[in-house]
Amino acid sequence: MSKAGASEGEFDRIARYFAPLAAGLPGALGLTDDAALLDPGPGRELVVSTDAQVEGVHFLPQADPALIAAKILRSSVSDLAAMGAEPRAYTLATFWTAAIDSAWLARFSQGLAAEQAALAILLAGGDTVKTPGPLSFSVTVFGAVPTGKAIRRNGARVGDLVAVTGTIGDAFLGLKLLREPELAAAWGLSDAEADFLAARYWRPSPRLATMVALRGVASAALDVSDGLVADLEHIAATSGVGIELALRAMPFSSGAQKAIAHLSPIDLLTGGDDYEIALTISPKKAAILSEVAQASGVPITLVGRCVAGSGVMLCDEARGILPIPKTGFRHF
Amino acid sequence: MSKAGASEGEFDRIARYFAPLAAGLPGALGLTDDAALLDPGPGRELVVSTDAQVEGVHFLPQADPALIAAKILRSSVSDLAAMGAEPRAYTLATFWTAAIDSAWLARFSQGLAAEQAALAILLAGGDTVKTPGPLSFSVTVFGAVPTGKAIRRNGARVGDLVAVTGTIGDAFLGLKLLREPELAAAWGLSDAEADFLAARYWRPSPRLATMVALRGVASAALDVSDGLVADLEHIAATSGVGIELALRAMPFSSGAQKAIAHLSPIDLLTGGDDYEIALTISPKKAAILSEVAQASGVPITLVGRCVAGSGVMLCDEARGILPIPKTGFRHF
Repeated sequence: MSKAGASEGEFDRIARYFAPLAAGLPGALGLTDDAALLDPGPGRELVVSTDAQVEGVHFLPQADPALIAAKILRSSVSDLAAMGAEPRAYTLATFWTAAIDSAWLARFSQGLAAEQAALAILLAGGDTVKTPGPLSFSVTVFGAVPTGKAIRRNGARVGDLVAVTGTIGDAFLGLKLLREPELAAAWGLSDAEADFLAARYWRPSPRLATMVALRGVASAALDVSDGLVADLEHIAATSGVGIELALRAMPFSSGAQKAIAHLSPIDLLTGGDDYEIALTISPKKAAILSEVAQASGVPITLVGRCVAGSGVMLCDEARGILPIPKTGFRHF
Repeated sequence: MSKAGASEGEFDRIARYFAPLAAGLPGALGLTDDAALLDPGPGRELVVSTDAQVEGVHFLPQADPALIAAKILRSSVSDLAAMGAEPRAYTLATFWTAAIDSAWLARFSQGLAAEQAALAILLAGGDTVKTPGPLSFSVTVFGAVPTGKAIRRNGARVGDLVAVTGTIGDAFLGLKLLREPELAAAWGLSDAEADFLAARYWRPSPRLATMVALRGVASAALDVSDGLVADLEHIAATSGVGIELALRAMPFSSGAQKAIAHLSPIDLLTGGDDYEIALTISPKKAAILSEVAQASGVPITLVGRCVAGSGVMLCDEARGILPIPKTGFRHF
């Protein structure tokens, strides 16, 4: 763990709150060196992804530090899932405000420890600095894939089917509920449904086992962070295809189905923070999806197909192609 | 390059200003995927280090973006040098303020391109987000070492000699000059000396070739970011030795020698931002240092020795052990 600008108090903090998170990863060197050592192992290459997150921009301010830990680590690990990689390690750059105290750090590091155990990932290093700005993080995650087997965005072909894991729009609705709790009653949600949607915002579920099983099967994949339509546009653009989505095929949770009566369903496809996987697959291989869904316990739903052309079109049986008012997610 | 929260304008920025920086690194995947692929190669392991830097905390505000690019990339690569690793790639998380415009980005990316060429490193990915706080960065650098050959901090033994590369205190003085230009005249510096010190602040020189040559030779090493005394305390603590430094042996540049008449020399050993390497070496191997210095064109100076005990002591022939008023560097 590099320590430019760290005060002695920060060394103590690293030893107390962060070094335990690196136990079990020999290459982390106990967070006492300038760098960590990573080896993907024979026949494997390392998958690396860096995310940046800012309080009040990427997550709600003044939240439970354990929830912040969950959101920043899980959303970062989702990038590994998208490529079919197995998590190994992460580094964490933290920009602390003056408000960060020992109680906050204890709760945050407990949260990281719990998420690490759930995700099978360990801390390899990082840096802690002070900022006069908002609490911010950069997480760099490391995973391993057999060499040449990472699932890319550019492999979709005309005729491929489009599928998504889990349900779409829950986190968008969860964020709305967290900001306006009275909406739960307005939408007619049970307490369990409201809690589920909020949890989907704070604790996304990287679809790791599902996507490891789909290495060599899916033709393209990515994780949905900016909204399903906006993210599928990246597969369309890099693969050189158009994508037609069927609105009525979309998988929505029970809470989302109730909320949709009060919103446009398109809002759920253009909201963000799903961290589900959108993927494409040859029709010849599509039968594998139900096997993988069953084995990994995560539903996979066919929602569209790749066509000649470009861009993403949303289709409705009754109304034909629907206009999409916005495709990029603005967090707040 | 993961793009959570990026607007379409930011995708354009990535394609225009950052994708060219990844050309030549196949594993960067053109910055179009969720993650990048890295392979250290057979018999090698990957060395990984993450740094965080904040405008106004870690570098002077309102600076030429090319200088900011130089400082953040060079100081990060210095961590690879410390471990004897060869640079391969880096990811960059950027927290942009509203003031960042196309002209700024053009200048910044030109600066990165120039530094990449000098350091033999390529961009592998990253993330760009907006912040209401100060301009901030997190750089994660990747290097390769033969497996098991990374130079650690914990290998110093009683009786080992202590050496430093280059000269010490230049960046500390350069920062003082940049903030109070009138000091150049007060210290009696030539224009060339003043420019040299300022350049040492903005463009540190990772000692890559020197440290690759010292793999298997140096018993411990680290890069000096927080001040020579504070950083050597880490070698002392992790290796379980004490360190005696000889003040009169310290290598100072001609400008620093002039400035010292107006300051305490101890300020130069407790200032920061040197990004020189402090290392320990068995006396039996010390003859190699002059060969390596000559081959790499970087002076290496013996400045102390490891003794039984703990901590770092600064010794003066006339006055004995000197008190060290502060050992941690506070940037501003």
